[in-house]
Amino acid sequence: MQNFKAIIQYDGTKYNGWQIQRNGGVTIQGKISDVLTQMVGNQVDVVGSGRTDAGVHALGQVANFLLPEKFSTPYILNYLNRYLPEDIAVVSVEKADERFHARFSCKGKTYRYRINNSLIPNVFERKFIYHYTDAVIDVDRMREAAKYLIGKHDFMSFCGNQHIKKSTVRTITEVSVNKRDNEIYIDYTGDGFLQNMVRILTGTLIDVGIGKIAPESMPQIIETKNRAAAGFTAPPHGLVLLCVEY
Amino acid sequence: MQNFKAIIQYDGTKYNGWQIQRNGGVTIQGKISDVLTQMVGNQVDVVGSGRTDAGVHALGQVANFLLPEKFSTPYILNYLNRYLPEDIAVVSVEKADERFHARFSCKGKTYRYRINNSLIPNVFERKFIYHYTDAVIDVDRMREAAKYLIGKHDFMSFCGNQHIKKSTVRTITEVSVNKRDNEIYIDYTGDGFLQNMVRILTGTLIDVGIGKIAPESMPQIIETKNRAAAGFTAPPHGLVLLCVEY
Repeated sequence: MQNFKAIIQYDGTKYNGWQIQRNGGVTIQGKISDVLTQMVGNQVDVVGSGRTDAGVHALGQVANFLLPEKFSTPYILNYLNRYLPEDIAVVSVEKADERFHARFSCKGKTYRYRINNSLIPNVFERKFIYHYTDAVIDVDRMREAAKYLIGKHDFMSFCGNQHIKKSTVRTITEVSVNKRDNEIYIDYTGDGFLQNMVRILTGTLIDVGIGKIAPESMPQIIETKNRAAAGFTAPPHGLVLLCVEY
Repeated sequence: MQNFKAIIQYDGTKYNGWQIQRNGGVTIQGKISDVLTQMVGNQVDVVGSGRTDAGVHALGQVANFLLPEKFSTPYILNYLNRYLPEDIAVVSVEKADERFHARFSCKGKTYRYRINNSLIPNVFERKFIYHYTDAVIDVDRMREAAKYLIGKHDFMSFCGNQHIKKSTVRTITEVSVNKRDNEIYIDYTGDGFLQNMVRILTGTLIDVGIGKIAPESMPQIIETKNRAAAGFTAPPHGLVLLCVEY
């Protein structure tokens, strides 16, 4: 058997997230596994770099899977793109070392959250941008608050699952807040992110940007290790997994 | 009464085109007219620069309408964006001279047709790009053919309505064929375009690009004034009305 690494893009609007669910629901992992299983004739399991929530998109999700050696990479790529639904695309397929594991080998990830803060909706990208019209967001305040996120912290306050048993310590290496025309986009790079973490970080930065939370109260929000101290959970559709590093 | 000029963007996917249809169907013109009528309390008619086919999009459609003087431009802009569906946005509203007529005052229009000629689908913009995978398109051949379209011609061969009674003479001032990554986009500028004309021109240029039609046979295709001589009608979803000149 040969191990393969694939880079995958998806519009997550209609999916119940990346990962196959015990209770069913349509997932991106499930769709890819189904097409590969159909191609090979036996069950093929697909390993992703990590989950993305329901409704979250990906520009560079990474997965790996084992296939019989007879399948060439162009054949696999074309087969996948022919049979996958139009909201999932495989950008590349390449042979990988047998030790390559999309989740365990992952060194870091970058997510982008996009916000339209104008009164005019973006009709063409509305499924990929959060249209926030409640108040004007001050980008400089967001930047000030974002600085406090950098480093190794216990991000329990920003975790959507307050019953989590595993470690909630993560390292964020970069948070950049950018503005282009009426769009604000925030890029988060780190070694990993907890459930809903990027969306809660974004909701908190928006609350800072509109004056509801002071930028300098960020360290305290982190220290309390309590979800209630942080801001709201920004909706999933503004979020996209940009890339995964190995 | 005050005349207003508005610039409108829409994702045409779900609409039966710009123009209100006698036999019903949901149209962009109809939606805008409904919201303005609700705002004013009396019927408001909306004049567009011209129709766009069902499924065609617009980045810069222009319309005008008469409203009682008491409504300010920011009020109208915000009211429209609040009550229009999320696939229609009004980018600007300004006071216009009483003689301004979106259709009759129009001096020219620019349309863009977008083609993805790779095997990998574009998941995020798939509703705005024609994914053409039948063959590899030679952009240089398209450019050569496009030159013959420039000027004042009878475009009957490129008209979707072969029972048209009005003149089918139009002037095309520019056709540019561009390639960026895997995307080919063709920009057409002219004083006006016949029904389906940009889509038939595009289908013909694709037929040239894949070697089915010779670039130098374009003058003959124009001269025959017969729809059968031209190429296929490219699907509506790749087409967007970029801007209208006055």
